[in-house]
Amino acid sequence: MDTNGFYHKIKTGTQVYGTCVTVCNPQWPAMLNKAGLDFVFLDTEHIPLDRSQLAYLCHGYRALGIAPIVRIATADETLAGQAVDAGAQGVIAPYLEKEEQIDSLVYALKYRPLKGVLLEQYRMRPDTLPDSLKTYLAAYNSGNVAIANIESVPALNNLERLLAVKGLDAVFIGPHDLSVSMGLPEEYDHPDFEKAVAHIIRLCRSNGISVGIHFSLEPDRQVKWGQQGANIIMHSSDVALFSQRLASDMKHIRSMLGDTQHAGEPDSISAII
Amino acid sequence: MDTNGFYHKIKTGTQVYGTCVTVCNPQWPAMLNKAGLDFVFLDTEHIPLDRSQLAYLCHGYRALGIAPIVRIATADETLAGQAVDAGAQGVIAPYLEKEEQIDSLVYALKYRPLKGVLLEQYRMRPDTLPDSLKTYLAAYNSGNVAIANIESVPALNNLERLLAVKGLDAVFIGPHDLSVSMGLPEEYDHPDFEKAVAHIIRLCRSNGISVGIHFSLEPDRQVKWGQQGANIIMHSSDVALFSQRLASDMKHIRSMLGDTQHAGEPDSISAII
Amino acid sequence: MDTNGFYHKIKTGTQVYGTCVTVCNPQWPAMLNKAGLDFVFLDTEHIPLDRSQLAYLCHGYRALGIAPIVRIATADETLAGQAVDAGAQGVIAPYLEKEEQIDSLVYALKYRPLKGVLLEQYRMRPDTLPDSLKTYLAAYNSGNVAIANIESVPALNNLERLLAVKGLDAVFIGPHDLSVSMGLPEEYDHPDFEKAVAHIIRLCRSNGISVGIHFSLEPDRQVKWGQQGANIIMHSSDVALFSQRLASDMKHIRSMLGDTQHAGEPDSISAII
Amino acid sequence: MDTNGFYHKIKTGTQVYGTCVTVCNPQWPAMLNKAGLDFVFLDTEHIPLDRSQLAYLCHGYRALGIAPIVRIATADETLAGQAVDAGAQGVIAPYLEKEEQIDSLVYALKYRPLKGVLLEQYRMRPDTLPDSLKTYLAAYNSGNVAIANIESVPALNNLERLLAVKGLDAVFIGPHDLSVSMGLPEEYDHPDFEKAVAHIIRLCRSNGISVGIHFSLEPDRQVKWGQQGANIIMHSSDVALFSQRLASDMKHIRSMLGDTQHAGEPDSISAII
Amino acid sequence: MDTNGFYHKIKTGTQVYGTCVTVCNPQWPAMLNKAGLDFVFLDTEHIPLDRSQLAYLCHGYRALGIAPIVRIATADETLAGQAVDAGAQGVIAPYLEKEEQIDSLVYALKYRPLKGVLLEQYRMRPDTLPDSLKTYLAAYNSGNVAIANIESVPALNNLERLLAVKGLDAVFIGPHDLSVSMGLPEEYDHPDFEKAVAHIIRLCRSNGISVGIHFSLEPDRQVKWGQQGANIIMHSSDVALFSQRLASDMKHIRSMLGDTQHAGEPDSISAII
Amino acid sequence: MDTNGFYHKIKTGTQVYGTCVTVCNPQWPAMLNKAGLDFVFLDTEHIPLDRSQLAYLCHGYRALGIAPIVRIATADETLAGQAVDAGAQGVIAPYLEKEEQIDSLVYALKYRPLKGVLLEQYRMRPDTLPDSLKTYLAAYNSGNVAIANIESVPALNNLERLLAVKGLDAVFIGPHDLSVSMGLPEEYDHPDFEKAVAHIIRLCRSNGISVGIHFSLEPDRQVKWGQQGANIIMHSSDVALFSQRLASDMKHIRSMLGDTQHAGEPDSISAII
Repeated sequence: MDTNGFYHKIKTGTQVYGTCVTVCNPQWPAMLNKAGLDFVFLDTEHIPLDRSQLAYLCHGYRALGIAPIVRIATADETLAGQAVDAGAQGVIAPYLEKEEQIDSLVYALKYRPLKGVLLEQYRMRPDTLPDSLKTYLAAYNSGNVAIANIESVPALNNLERLLAVKGLDAVFIGPHDLSVSMGLPEEYDHPDFEKAVAHIIRLCRSNGISVGIHFSLEPDRQVKWGQQGANIIMHSSDVALFSQRLASDMKHIRSMLGDTQHAGEPDSISAII
Repeated sequence: MDTNGFYHKIKTGTQVYGTCVTVCNPQWPAMLNKAGLDFVFLDTEHIPLDRSQLAYLCHGYRALGIAPIVRIATADETLAGQAVDAGAQGVIAPYLEKEEQIDSLVYALKYRPLKGVLLEQYRMRPDTLPDSLKTYLAAYNSGNVAIANIESVPALNNLERLLAVKGLDAVFIGPHDLSVSMGLPEEYDHPDFEKAVAHIIRLCRSNGISVGIHFSLEPDRQVKWGQQGANIIMHSSDVALFSQRLASDMKHIRSMLGDTQHAGEPDSISAII
Repeated sequence: MDTNGFYHKIKTGTQVYGTCVTVCNPQWPAMLNKAGLDFVFLDTEHIPLDRSQLAYLCHGYRALGIAPIVRIATADETLAGQAVDAGAQGVIAPYLEKEEQIDSLVYALKYRPLKGVLLEQYRMRPDTLPDSLKTYLAAYNSGNVAIANIESVPALNNLERLLAVKGLDAVFIGPHDLSVSMGLPEEYDHPDFEKAVAHIIRLCRSNGISVGIHFSLEPDRQVKWGQQGANIIMHSSDVALFSQRLASDMKHIRSMLGDTQHAGEPDSISAII
Repeated sequence: MDTNGFYHKIKTGTQVYGTCVTVCNPQWPAMLNKAGLDFVFLDTEHIPLDRSQLAYLCHGYRALGIAPIVRIATADETLAGQAVDAGAQGVIAPYLEKEEQIDSLVYALKYRPLKGVLLEQYRMRPDTLPDSLKTYLAAYNSGNVAIANIESVPALNNLERLLAVKGLDAVFIGPHDLSVSMGLPEEYDHPDFEKAVAHIIRLCRSNGISVGIHFSLEPDRQVKWGQQGANIIMHSSDVALFSQRLASDMKHIRSMLGDTQHAGEPDSISAII
Repeated sequence: MDTNGFYHKIKTGTQVYGTCVTVCNPQWPAMLNKAGLDFVFLDTEHIPLDRSQLAYLCHGYRALGIAPIVRIATADETLAGQAVDAGAQGVIAPYLEKEEQIDSLVYALKYRPLKGVLLEQYRMRPDTLPDSLKTYLAAYNSGNVAIANIESVPALNNLERLLAVKGLDAVFIGPHDLSVSMGLPEEYDHPDFEKAVAHIIRLCRSNGISVGIHFSLEPDRQVKWGQQGANIIMHSSDVALFSQRLASDMKHIRSMLGDTQHAGEPDSISAII
Repeated sequence: MDTNGFYHKIKTGTQVYGTCVTVCNPQWPAMLNKAGLDFVFLDTEHIPLDRSQLAYLCHGYRALGIAPIVRIATADETLAGQAVDAGAQGVIAPYLEKEEQIDSLVYALKYRPLKGVLLEQYRMRPDTLPDSLKTYLAAYNSGNVAIANIESVPALNNLERLLAVKGLDAVFIGPHDLSVSMGLPEEYDHPDFEKAVAHIIRLCRSNGISVGIHFSLEPDRQVKWGQQGANIIMHSSDVALFSQRLASDMKHIRSMLGDTQHAGEPDSISAII
């Protein structure tokens, strides 16, 4: 099921806006809806969300026309299927570096409920899949979006082949992991890092793949990447936006009131997701 | 039990800083701790928190030295006792207008576990309470903070008598309810509203009562009230800070990218709490 | 906020359809949406729902355009306000027998956030409420539906006066309580019981009040009452529909397979709600 | 419904054994079942249990033949009804001191679903209740146990009249509240306290009322009170038994290993419940 | 531990009745108990149940003598062990096609807590397992039921060898997956599909293996398969029975009241499980 | 982050005390804090804890200076990372028998967020890891404790090589699994079992590895093992301590009161964990 044309937007490279939601709270969805989001990013890799919470989140946001995009903990077909069963429209597999990984993700999302020996056969020989079954599976899985997390040097080096895998819809760049993998941990202003990101964005778009980068600090980064061609604007998270605003407001109030005692600042939250 | 000297600060009129927390999330407390808060405001009047969630919140923040202040749903001795059992250090009763209401709150918080007929007797004739019992009850309830929500014209008119009730520790001004009660709904810049707030602050402080005002918009309001004498800085809430920051960041990004489609803005959140 | 025109339908006596939902499950709302419901009835009087669950239910159904109608545990202004804060569009107070009870419910739902001394004054002297405040409160509470549970002989005897209370929008008849109050426990086919129900329906509609009856057995009862004029079709509950269908299917299968061992049948569920 | 003959045992003064359960954990019930308990005491006055947790606890223990006895937060008919709806077999109202309070509890538990004006009439004039309705209500509420918490000097002074209220089944003595009310806080060995407890036990039993005392320290107290006539053995709680055993085992291990650093000891837990 | 003789019934091919439960609700178990069920099917492959919910469900149904049968997400020894730790009596592994998969399931369920290198050795050379250990493990794991989901053409083709694996107790046929694998998606009336099911039933029973088919539409399918020899009657689910009954009742009421506006119908739910 | 010097104590072989916590309850942490614990053992292998519960537990105990040590369900890098994301300070992988397993655990805990191809390269050729990255990863993962569960004969036979793996910090002995693997199920007094435990303790300590054994019966076992050199005192669990104390107290009370009916006793709980 395509929520509010999200799949269509991804396939046509239309600009879409979202944030990472880490909190399962009954008031959150209506509130995010007011900010005019196209999707929410739900990260089961790093955020300790339960399966039932994930299902509440997916169903709650879908009901409002906001597409739920779920990152699974590791590239695994069973996890991809569980995310869809919980209501995800898109699934992100983290740290993909090899073509087989992307192919597995695509098959897990777009050939459900086929599995096992037969799925392997169809994957090796797609032409052997009967047309009637092909039609059924396309309808059954319509709207599902397959997204690869590109966040390492090996993935960067192998990028053209990765993007060529049939069925891949979009790429999420993981800035923290990528910076560490490049030996430039958290140096998001380093020219090599900036070059790498720009390269991924360009290559994705020229291959007809939607692309975005999830980042939890300055919104102007999203502007810059958007100007470079990123059409998925994945800006920050509830936890980062709240804690950054709280810290800066409190600092301002204390300083205006002449109270200089506390100088706490939240960590860079980008490290979390 | 006094968390991090909070009771002492309230009694001495020391500046304390807090925010309203509406989310029961395992990562929240450590994050707020970094912002250097003295207390959190947990509102069971308007926010649908379960009793077990309230207990997690109270114990979680206490463990970090942040005093949990709980607003009960209505002025009721049983609810006040349940808040303390859940781990609250302070209890706020909403919409207090009469001296008996404040007196009841004080007795519910500072004479536990006395109840019923005998408590009524001691309340009428405090001198009949045996010294040994007085000592026991003082130790048993040490650190408990009694806070009155002042948020209506009748309360305003009766303020001197309300502040004179023995045992009252602090006042929270409720701006939304007060503005409606004054016939100036949400007109927080109206001179009459500003005058009323300034009056409450002044009267509280001159009576040795700590005072603050919970407000969810501009931090500069807290600065102004702090300069007028409010020593409890109760700035905004997680839900307001997050949604305001998300909306403004998204607006900025969209506008910089030339995307003018969405103009959504979160409601004034002050209406909620 | 009016969900999908529900308030308008209630005020115009349009037919609306709903069921009682007792289960807080992420998959339920989308499923009920397919059955084309206008509202769900959420009963916090008898069903042990937590406040956070109630908020999930209210927000989840609202997002799909299904109005959440919440029965509070007893006629109490604080509970009515908490239901609205949790996301309820309509509030049912149980076992109402007196005009003041209905008036209190109306004021609790339609004059928020006014409370206390001033609300009492405006309730006694509605003409003293300033026009600007009236307008604000009407907008602030727009869409809220006040529903009285009529389920006893004293209420029946006092019905005309109860229905005359300004602001009452609808009546829910409670068949189990009413039958017990009439000394005809669970005798839903007794002519006196049928006459009483028909009388309430007729009187409500002739006073411009929407009316329905929540009943958990045969759907043909709803047809009959609908033909008598009930425009709120409040048919059964998830727990009743499931258990009735399970029991009848299992009985059928066992009997067809020649297995006569088990003859269990679910209790009349009407007793529960 | 009578769970495992619990109601019969209470009415005949048979010895019954139980503990206070504060934890809603899937493994607890089967474990307690092995200890051969007749009932569990679930305290919603002091323990922050949610309504859904209470329902899990009640249904879970009932399924194993262990009667769930629920203490409500305060003497209130709505709370008593909610406890029964959640699955409680017995309901304890705290701090009862007056005959009307006991009578209200009895009517709330044994005349459901009657309420309001008519219930008041039947309560004033029991002879006006029709026989057929009497029979229905007796069957509908069969097995429900009404228990009064006696825990203050005024209750002690009024005890004969309290025990004479028709329909009262049992008494729970609250040692902490009683000791405070007597001006002997936590002095459980004081001869006056011991005399008071012995007096309540004797008076209950001679009036055909079952009686017990919930206490969280030495099991030999239960032995002593059992020998004095208490037939309800309400020994300690999960939280007290665990923390006491952990503290004593840890102290033993540390001391045997020559590690004398830590001397922590859990508080008297009796204060909690 | 054998719940209510369930293991014995499976080993002797006795008729057993069950349904799929997707809802963790305190009132469900007692309600299902009235329908006379032998087991419940809890599906962690497709239904987003948390581990703690699974444990509540397993313990709750066991307490009532209803055996909990858990489908794990994928054939994996760790998941099988976790299901047993959560209280499952039987474990179903989905989409089994190879003998090693069935053998692994059997060893995971019947040789606990052996694992690792030694378990591999005993699995290769069962005769090397010491008799005393054999006896201990048999007692330790007594009652555990190993169930294979047969739901693909490769499994069908390999069926005789699969059924010959020592320790396999029962087979669940997965109709949706099987129909897709056969290239006949959801064509449950297709003669080839019917033939395949009948073949599996016959082959299982002639090999002393209990067999059933989980299906969520007409109960007469279960009758037909029961007559063909299926002794496990796994009829529908709570979610399917409720939504089907709600949709048909609402359609009936609307049509009788002349309201033809809504024609919604729930999807085939068989697709879900 | 090092909680209360726990990592330092583990590296220096200092005595540390802990228990296994199976219950996610808001009151537990403060209570355990009073018993002076250094760590809690949270077992996600056998105890059905949800991810969100695990995060509450980890953050709650950390806030009090008690280090949370989490056993993952099976040796798996993704699970190890999720435990750390949930707030674990130490991670125990169960049933380790091979050097690669220990090495994987170490890399999963101490080289985060590196993964995939590059991590494999650095693992094979540690000298190729740039110094700046090494420094970053050391700081990023500082305080993380890698613990191997040794609980089988193959592990015993391979122990010297296992302990030599660089980065391993501590060993937990699993008595139940070990006894079964040795063909001596639950024979904890068997001389061969005692010899094996003593051998592991000695070998660990002489290799600079901290060691403990989680056991749920007599505290004197911990004394004996402590005297043999075990510096991690992992004594019992909340569920075992509670049920043992409840059973013995109830037995005592019954016997003193001459009630000989019930002789239930909890199972050996050591089997559970």
